[in-house]
Amino acid sequence: MKLEKFEGLRENYIASGGEIEEFKKQAGKVDIGYKISYSKKITEADVYAFGLVSGDWNPIHFDDEFASQTKFGKRVAHGMLTTSLVSAAVAQMPGIIVLLKTDFSYLKPVSIGDVVEVKGEVVGKNKNRFTLEIGCYVGDEKVVSGEVKLLIW
Amino acid sequence: MKLEKFEGLRENYIASGGEIEEFKKQAGKVDIGYKISYSKKITEADVYAFGLVSGDWNPIHFDDEFASQTKFGKRVAHGMLTTSLVSAAVAQMPGIIVLLKTDFSYLKPVSIGDVVEVKGEVVGKNKNRFTLEIGCYVGDEKVVSGEVKLLIW
Repeated sequence: MKLEKFEGLRENYIASGGEIEEFKKQAGKVDIGYKISYSKKITEADVYAFGLVSGDWNPIHFDDEFASQTKFGKRVAHGMLTTSLVSAAVAQMPGIIVLLKTDFSYLKPVSIGDVVEVKGEVVGKNKNRFTLEIGCYVGDEKVVSGEVKLLIW
Repeated sequence: MKLEKFEGLRENYIASGGEIEEFKKQAGKVDIGYKISYSKKITEADVYAFGLVSGDWNPIHFDDEFASQTKFGKRVAHGMLTTSLVSAAVAQMPGIIVLLKTDFSYLKPVSIGDVVEVKGEVVGKNKNRFTLEIGCYVGDEKVVSGEVKLLIW
C-alpha cells in the first residue's frame, strides 16, 4: 500500500533489500476447510525494521559475531517476525478480519533470506468466529506450528 | 541499535514519527517471580513499518474511512504489532533468549498513538526453560493477555 506520507519509509525499506508482497483480498465464503497461503522473503531489512517497531534488539538477530557463538551458529530472524506473516495471511481472507487469539510454537530458527510460507486451514467455526490451524514453512521444513482464532465482520 | 547500512531506514522511521526505545539488557538471575516490564508508543510509523515487514495491509489499520465504518470506529494497530513488544520485553532478560511458544489473546483494540506497557512474570521453570505470564496494558486497561515459553542459553 502506498501512503504519501510514508513514501520515504517505503522507498528506504525497498532500497535496504525489503520486498513488497501483494495484498490480495480473497473472494469466497469462509467455512470449515477454507485454506489460505501466503509467502514472503524475510530480508535483513525486515529484521532491522522489526527491531525498530518492536524495540527487540536481541543480538542474536543483529550481531554476526555474537550469533556465531550460539547454538544457531548465525543470526536468525525474530520468531515474531516470522509469525507476523500469519497476520498478513489471515487478513487476506474475505471480510473484515479481527484477530482474537494466536498460539504459536517456534520449532526451528528462520535464517535471514529464507522465504517463509504460511499455510492455514479453517478447522473450527462458531457463528462469525473461526479457528485456523497454521503452519509456517521454509521449503518443506515446518518452522512454526500454531492456531489462530479470528472474527469476521 | 545503529547499523550503518540501515541508517537511512532508521532516520526515516524517526522522521515518520517512530520512537526508539532503549534496549536495556537486565542483570540478575531468572527464577520464579522474576518480573519484566517494557513500554513503547505505537505510532503511525510503526503501523506502516509493520505493514511493510509482514505484508498485512488490512484496511482497518490504514484506511480512515473504511475503519470509521467498523465497530472500532477508527483505525487500530495490528494485534501482532502490539505483541511484538513482548518480544522486546523478554529479549531484555539476562542471558541469550530464544522464544519457544507464545499464546496471546487480543482483548481490546490498541489505538495509534497509544503507549503499550508489557508486564511479565516468570511463573514456571524447567531447567533452562521458563514460562512467563504476560499482560499488555494501555493505561490500566489490559489489551492482551498471554503466556510465553522461552529458553535461556
